[in-house]
Amino acid sequence: MDLYGRDLICTQDWSFEELMAALDLAAKMKRDRFNPRWTRILEHRTFIMFFYNPSVRTRLSFEAAMTELGGHAQFMTPSAGRFKTQKQAGETIEDAAKVMARYAAGIGIRILEDKVPYYGAGDEMLREYAYWADVPIFNMADDKFHPMQGLADVMGWAEWYGEGPGRPDYSALEGKKFVLTWASGALARSWCSVQEALLVASRFGMHVTLAYPEGYDLDPEVIAQVRQNCQERGTDFEVVHDPEAGYEGAHIVYARNWMSPNAYRDGVFHKQEEIEKALQYPEWILTAEKMARTDNAIFTHPMPVDRGHEVTDEVASGPRSAIYDIAENRLHVQKAVMALTMGNL
Amino acid sequence: MDLYGRDLICTQDWSFEELMAALDLAAKMKRDRFNPRWTRILEHRTFIMFFYNPSVRTRLSFEAAMTELGGHAQFMTPSAGRFKTQKQAGETIEDAAKVMARYAAGIGIRILEDKVPYYGAGDEMLREYAYWADVPIFNMADDKFHPMQGLADVMGWAEWYGEGPGRPDYSALEGKKFVLTWASGALARSWCSVQEALLVASRFGMHVTLAYPEGYDLDPEVIAQVRQNCQERGTDFEVVHDPEAGYEGAHIVYARNWMSPNAYRDGVFHKQEEIEKALQYPEWILTAEKMARTDNAIFTHPMPVDRGHEVTDEVASGPRSAIYDIAENRLHVQKAVMALTMGNL
Amino acid sequence: MDLYGRDLICTQDWSFEELMAALDLAAKMKRDRFNPRWTRILEHRTFIMFFYNPSVRTRLSFEAAMTELGGHAQFMTPSAGRFKTQKQAGETIEDAAKVMARYAAGIGIRILEDKVPYYGAGDEMLREYAYWADVPIFNMADDKFHPMQGLADVMGWAEWYGEGPGRPDYSALEGKKFVLTWASGALARSWCSVQEALLVASRFGMHVTLAYPEGYDLDPEVIAQVRQNCQERGTDFEVVHDPEAGYEGAHIVYARNWMSPNAYRDGVFHKQEEIEKALQYPEWILTAEKMARTDNAIFTHPMPVDRGHEVTDEVASGPRSAIYDIAENRLHVQKAVMALTMGNL
Repeated sequence: MDLYGRDLICTQDWSFEELMAALDLAAKMKRDRFNPRWTRILEHRTFIMFFYNPSVRTRLSFEAAMTELGGHAQFMTPSAGRFKTQKQAGETIEDAAKVMARYAAGIGIRILEDKVPYYGAGDEMLREYAYWADVPIFNMADDKFHPMQGLADVMGWAEWYGEGPGRPDYSALEGKKFVLTWASGALARSWCSVQEALLVASRFGMHVTLAYPEGYDLDPEVIAQVRQNCQERGTDFEVVHDPEAGYEGAHIVYARNWMSPNAYRDGVFHKQEEIEKALQYPEWILTAEKMARTDNAIFTHPMPVDRGHEVTDEVASGPRSAIYDIAENRLHVQKAVMALTMGNL
Repeated sequence: MDLYGRDLICTQDWSFEELMAALDLAAKMKRDRFNPRWTRILEHRTFIMFFYNPSVRTRLSFEAAMTELGGHAQFMTPSAGRFKTQKQAGETIEDAAKVMARYAAGIGIRILEDKVPYYGAGDEMLREYAYWADVPIFNMADDKFHPMQGLADVMGWAEWYGEGPGRPDYSALEGKKFVLTWASGALARSWCSVQEALLVASRFGMHVTLAYPEGYDLDPEVIAQVRQNCQERGTDFEVVHDPEAGYEGAHIVYARNWMSPNAYRDGVFHKQEEIEKALQYPEWILTAEKMARTDNAIFTHPMPVDRGHEVTDEVASGPRSAIYDIAENRLHVQKAVMALTMGNL
Repeated sequence: MDLYGRDLICTQDWSFEELMAALDLAAKMKRDRFNPRWTRILEHRTFIMFFYNPSVRTRLSFEAAMTELGGHAQFMTPSAGRFKTQKQAGETIEDAAKVMARYAAGIGIRILEDKVPYYGAGDEMLREYAYWADVPIFNMADDKFHPMQGLADVMGWAEWYGEGPGRPDYSALEGKKFVLTWASGALARSWCSVQEALLVASRFGMHVTLAYPEGYDLDPEVIAQVRQNCQERGTDFEVVHDPEAGYEGAHIVYARNWMSPNAYRDGVFHKQEEIEKALQYPEWILTAEKMARTDNAIFTHPMPVDRGHEVTDEVASGPRSAIYDIAENRLHVQKAVMALTMGNL
């Protein structure tokens, strides 16, 4: 297997074996974080981080990843450039991508739904960058997918059901029950993290329960892919619309707010309306009472957590909360992916 | 003495011996800036610089310090994240601090009075970060204190009364007369630098004269601490309200503008009002004539200098101006503190 | 020859031999980009990039250059500081430059015409920084000149008329015909790149044809210098005002929009007016038809290219387009200049 030069825009674009190659390397790197085996892999190399949308965790973890691999990550925002859009003259993606590839060994892009004219346009832009640039393009969260988060999630789950931090057991996830539930919240969140989590959970052999109020459907194409993943692994996929349903027998509970498919109308993001609507479902919060009905499930969340809306403090800061381990795993999976695709490892 | 893991939020939080450990290492580092003994201490490590308020000197000197210690400093602003405040949903300090500590070996925060609801709230926020993060938290200037500036100041004074750059003599400061005077100015400045300077000067055994117009009191708790420091060292502390008083016999003169205690009323920073009021005291400027009445005193200032308001060009660019040496010392004291607290030195 | 400590504000400030020293080193660095001979030259050193105006290519290439030389480039914008201007109190250039020189081994500044009160004020500011700072000051594009672009241009031309990437032949440029033509466009561009290109082309022994519509004169002092350069090299310099003229026998065609001398009136940048005016000259676009009348000329442009206004896609993406190679050369010439001036090489 040779991952040199590969893009990573969605975990579904990579074979299971390719994902496992990255995850296995990530565990080795986590067990021995500053070993000289890793700290010279991208020595003197540049990684460009292109943030159309701001971020703390993604910025910190990618920039630290490059520092730990011996290289340097540059932080860029689109206001730093003059890019061609429907409304203004400027540089084409062809030109931008070809030039960046002369300077950098890889490029990461983050672009969410509020920066694009329609759902999916962000993901398309990443794929256009990937077409023109002859260095790897990484999705640092777009309007559809968030592959690094998906890898960090599954690594964390496999650590909690394996032998702990740095000692994941991926086979232990097979046949476990994964519940992903919509949650109330005041942040009108993107679909990328939850869609990626569903794809990853289904590919790693888990039964998947998706719970949300009527009116909060996710992308039907992604859901069809999740269904197919489950079918291929011989697991169950079910959808429920009751805030109390689905917890029985659950091993992993993922509770997070996301916006409705109506958030964007007429090219406008109706953010305040979405927030007000979401706050009308206070019963869609993950509580210790609900967790008590599971099979001693762990709590997972891509952070930032909207405590008090999505989940109670008792659960988020409780003994079965995997959130900080998973946040840390962002660093390790990104190091592994960059080492394999940019580092000729 | 083991400073590994220690926060630095105010110099008063550290013992005199601990401060001297940092200052002695800073002098060694200044004398031999790029020696391999220092350049690998934080190799591949990340330091997070969190700037609620912008800065040139602090940013440059912290980022250069990490580069010179072999690591990397990330520049972050709060607009890059979604932090919970009284007015908006977002991430708690608990979550932010715990995650950042997974990626970074240390965190610096700068937050001044215009970004907090009441005086002291910035300092409290730093202490909350320190509570949750298990890596060192450094104060890069908050609404009360500015410890790195205080260390750079005293190092500079001890160099000028010692054997020059990189050869400070701290015992030479004992019994010297330190005059800190309010000055006119158009920048309505924070209290942090001057309060830290008073704490440091009094702990290093100097007689302290504090001069300001009626109505420009500093934090009474800090002043009480300065008084106590002087008492413990057996030195004098006096307050005068005359722009001509206090210069006789002075060895170090620190002239700087600061805002009045009334700058914040009803949660609003009355900046323009403060500036107009301060400009009504043009006689509170440090001149060569005043300096001529001292015991050949040096001029000290944390910069940026508001020339023409706080001090004349003749003094600021004159032969007894220590300002550039002290600015440079920011780099060296920060390197020393980071090496000791983050670097397991 | 010793370039240690030298500023680079315009290529005309350096002797031909000094420019060749930088260009020869750039070619060596390009041929063997990550050789340890280069990667330690600025180890642990800091370069400050001061961007009054944003940029993608300049930022990326300078920051990558420092990473590849072993050091680190800090990204700063003036909003990060409180600088003295005619309208506000703040820090003087004297103080800013002297302090930065304590932290950094070199300083780059980018300031274009929209950030200064009159044409030439940006270039003057750079020279004031150079006066006060005792580390090299580099022009990263100001209102008059863009020396790194000029060096990258001539390196690219010499590669295309030499033996290809990394194998330039500068003598092959002597006696060649260089055509620099104004082009339509929607970006109202600065004069710095084209003025620098004219200076460089004339110094390297090329015949120079400058084409533009009446009303688009460049700086008469720069044009006088170009004339003198041509005279010294015994080459021709001509000005034409016909969009079809000058192409016969051309070897290098540089087509780019620039603003008229009337763009700034009463201290205001009439940007929209400039754009509207420029768009009234659609015949001033570089086409394959025009290129067919040359002596198989290459197309050169400093990027970003305003495709469809300045040049057709057919030319910009065609087999004789040197634009990506020249963009890459920014990295190599900057590495060479920084190594020679900051690195004591």
